[in-house]
Amino acid sequence: MQPYDLTATAAARAIRAGELSPVDLVQSLLDRIAATESRVQAWEHVDAEGALSAARHLEAKRRERPPADLLFGVPIGMKDVFHARGLPTTANFDPYRGKVIGEDSGVVQHLREAGAVILGKTVTVQFAWGRDPVKTRNPWNAELTPGGSSSGSGAAVGARQVPAAMGTQTGGSTLRPACYCGIVALKPTFGRISRYGLLPVSWTFDHPGIMVRSIADAALLLQALARHDPRDPFSADQQPEDFVAATREAGAPPRLGLLRDLLDRADPPVRQAAETAAERLRQAGADVREVRLPVPMDLLLAVHFVILTSEGGTVHAEQIRHFAEHYFRNLRASIEAGHVLPAAAYVQAARLRRRLRAQMVEMVGGVDGIIGPTVRTLPPRAETGTGDPSFQSIWSLFGFPNVTIPTMLSPERLPHGIQIVGRHFGERELLRIATWCERVFEPLPSPL
Amino acid sequence: MQPYDLTATAAARAIRAGELSPVDLVQSLLDRIAATESRVQAWEHVDAEGALSAARHLEAKRRERPPADLLFGVPIGMKDVFHARGLPTTANFDPYRGKVIGEDSGVVQHLREAGAVILGKTVTVQFAWGRDPVKTRNPWNAELTPGGSSSGSGAAVGARQVPAAMGTQTGGSTLRPACYCGIVALKPTFGRISRYGLLPVSWTFDHPGIMVRSIADAALLLQALARHDPRDPFSADQQPEDFVAATREAGAPPRLGLLRDLLDRADPPVRQAAETAAERLRQAGADVREVRLPVPMDLLLAVHFVILTSEGGTVHAEQIRHFAEHYFRNLRASIEAGHVLPAAAYVQAARLRRRLRAQMVEMVGGVDGIIGPTVRTLPPRAETGTGDPSFQSIWSLFGFPNVTIPTMLSPERLPHGIQIVGRHFGERELLRIATWCERVFEPLPSPL
Repeated sequence: MQPYDLTATAAARAIRAGELSPVDLVQSLLDRIAATESRVQAWEHVDAEGALSAARHLEAKRRERPPADLLFGVPIGMKDVFHARGLPTTANFDPYRGKVIGEDSGVVQHLREAGAVILGKTVTVQFAWGRDPVKTRNPWNAELTPGGSSSGSGAAVGARQVPAAMGTQTGGSTLRPACYCGIVALKPTFGRISRYGLLPVSWTFDHPGIMVRSIADAALLLQALARHDPRDPFSADQQPEDFVAATREAGAPPRLGLLRDLLDRADPPVRQAAETAAERLRQAGADVREVRLPVPMDLLLAVHFVILTSEGGTVHAEQIRHFAEHYFRNLRASIEAGHVLPAAAYVQAARLRRRLRAQMVEMVGGVDGIIGPTVRTLPPRAETGTGDPSFQSIWSLFGFPNVTIPTMLSPERLPHGIQIVGRHFGERELLRIATWCERVFEPLPSPL
Repeated sequence: MQPYDLTATAAARAIRAGELSPVDLVQSLLDRIAATESRVQAWEHVDAEGALSAARHLEAKRRERPPADLLFGVPIGMKDVFHARGLPTTANFDPYRGKVIGEDSGVVQHLREAGAVILGKTVTVQFAWGRDPVKTRNPWNAELTPGGSSSGSGAAVGARQVPAAMGTQTGGSTLRPACYCGIVALKPTFGRISRYGLLPVSWTFDHPGIMVRSIADAALLLQALARHDPRDPFSADQQPEDFVAATREAGAPPRLGLLRDLLDRADPPVRQAAETAAERLRQAGADVREVRLPVPMDLLLAVHFVILTSEGGTVHAEQIRHFAEHYFRNLRASIEAGHVLPAAAYVQAARLRRRLRAQMVEMVGGVDGIIGPTVRTLPPRAETGTGDPSFQSIWSLFGFPNVTIPTMLSPERLPHGIQIVGRHFGERELLRIATWCERVFEPLPSPL
């Protein structure tokens, strides 16, 4: 096994035990990127020099005393919408190229404080919004999309170029690429992770997301990131919790609600795989019952569309006047749609969101977790865009935490996954039941 | 002194002491209405039968045991946007006339539970929104407006047709008519009083307001109304507080911030009267310093306009399609403006409100209370509408509690007043310093 094959948890353990040098780990990942990047194209900027220098610094520190930091020496890729000191934040937007940022975002700061090494910036759909195609390809099949908008983070972790990467999710931008690329992702509760220094899409929906290869890794990163940040006005006041411990003991079989609405909408192979996965969970002892959304799913999607388009349109209102030609085609259309939506539509959508929230909370609270297929289809062809966010965005709408775990490969060797939705600020229990579910399925092989 | 001349506090005391019968009080007010209503036109519906029957019921109860309820036997007028069981809620909108409502609003319920008698419904500007003229006239001069939108409540209390009335305020609809009519009003903090069963204008701004003839009366009604109501999603969780006690001891002279921005915008006679009032407060021992808004007042007014127009437009979107011809001219234009405002304008306004709130809270928190003229001008002619809400709406925008008290009469015998703005949920202190200020000024005579 090469160092690049290690999960974040295994790498951190090996470094702590003195069995692996942070410098060797970074070098192994740089070699892996060199060998696979022409095929995957996951990176906007690999900061080889910065990462090696940070690793050498940690190496020297480790010689002084054994490291205690959670992520000591663990390299992490950042979606190119998080500010990181000394690098540009391009958001796939030409006018931003080459403009170096002077300050870390909250997420980068918290990761560095936990000992992580920033390996570079990963490709994002322009401004993390919309489905315009990107250069990044799915590590399982180069003709297909890795999903988006956290395209590079999904592909890089899937291709074992880095053990962990950060994404963001406003609709389905973390869970969808994770599922398409055959990895694990956790989108924590709205307000759980700082959004300071993160380019906004829609500030009432934007969530940072964690993209890794195991639930234990998701817990490890969450442990470092679950902190109040007064610089983010929506950041939650929160008590410290032991998320990592929650993944060590899987405990009792969970009561799961299999969401009928998602099965009914899924493409036949996806539906079939989700039903097979649910059956395996049942056989392993889980209590899996069917549940339904309290309102038609189309209403939830309409509310999400109107709020996202209105808020996103506002964010770009000024800039698009000066740089219209630099915007990707579909994104530009979405922003322009935001500018003609009437205020009454937004007000009505905001009202509906408030009203529907209580019903959704009640549905989610009736079981330990809601499960269903993470995505509606298998990954579509890369030139058509980054796929359909509808199965993920109904949870982003209300800020529920959710995870995706891979379950099996399709006959054409593409990954299937299931998502699990938990209660607001219930990540500890969500991670416990996700660990329980993860153990039911065989790990996927490496795609490359 | 006739019973109709008593304040709410004095009437409640006389009834409790057995010196006044609730039936005689209601009858005295009905006689006063009969004598003055052709001149004032404050009432949409006087519920003589219902009020007398309620008073007789209280009379019988009082014979059984001495009453303890705060408002035992006190008659109160309700702006015709609050539902009261057995009466229509017309909101000055013809299609609603004659449609009897089956349930009390939260405010009516809480008043009845405190022993109050509902005397009837007072005239409102249509749907409590806009400046369209109404039939009600200013008790000080029949050619002038009483202000609005709580026109009838202001005029009825001013004309001593009822000791207390409820209004509402979304922009300036409680404080402005109170000032024009020479009475006291308290608009408590947003969320302090239930809005259940109240027709909405704009749900992030709507406040019930208390219209009376003394600060002690305002405290008395607030004592009955400051309750959490789970049926109103914005209702605040609150601890019981003794507001009435706060008005018994005026205590130390307050530190007051005289708001320069209001003086600069006020008409010369209003500005002159406010400066005279401030000087008297200074002479009485108050520490009065000048303060300024942290941002241009026009920005606050623009934010208020966009949010109000967008939310109000949404409320009426469906109904105006079927009943366009029943809407008053200016209100209809405002609703139509709401339907063409872009969502981006609302989103931007909501964002600005969040951002400006902290600066406003800091300004208000720097003193015990902010003071200034309650209104920009003396009451204009009735046919021109109900006057300018700008001096009151900058406080409604952020939900600050504020009161107005009359200070003096102009040479043409029209009332001047000052407003005092307090901290969120700081009504106890606001009522204390308002009591202190009230004692500095001569009570106004009766206008009729």
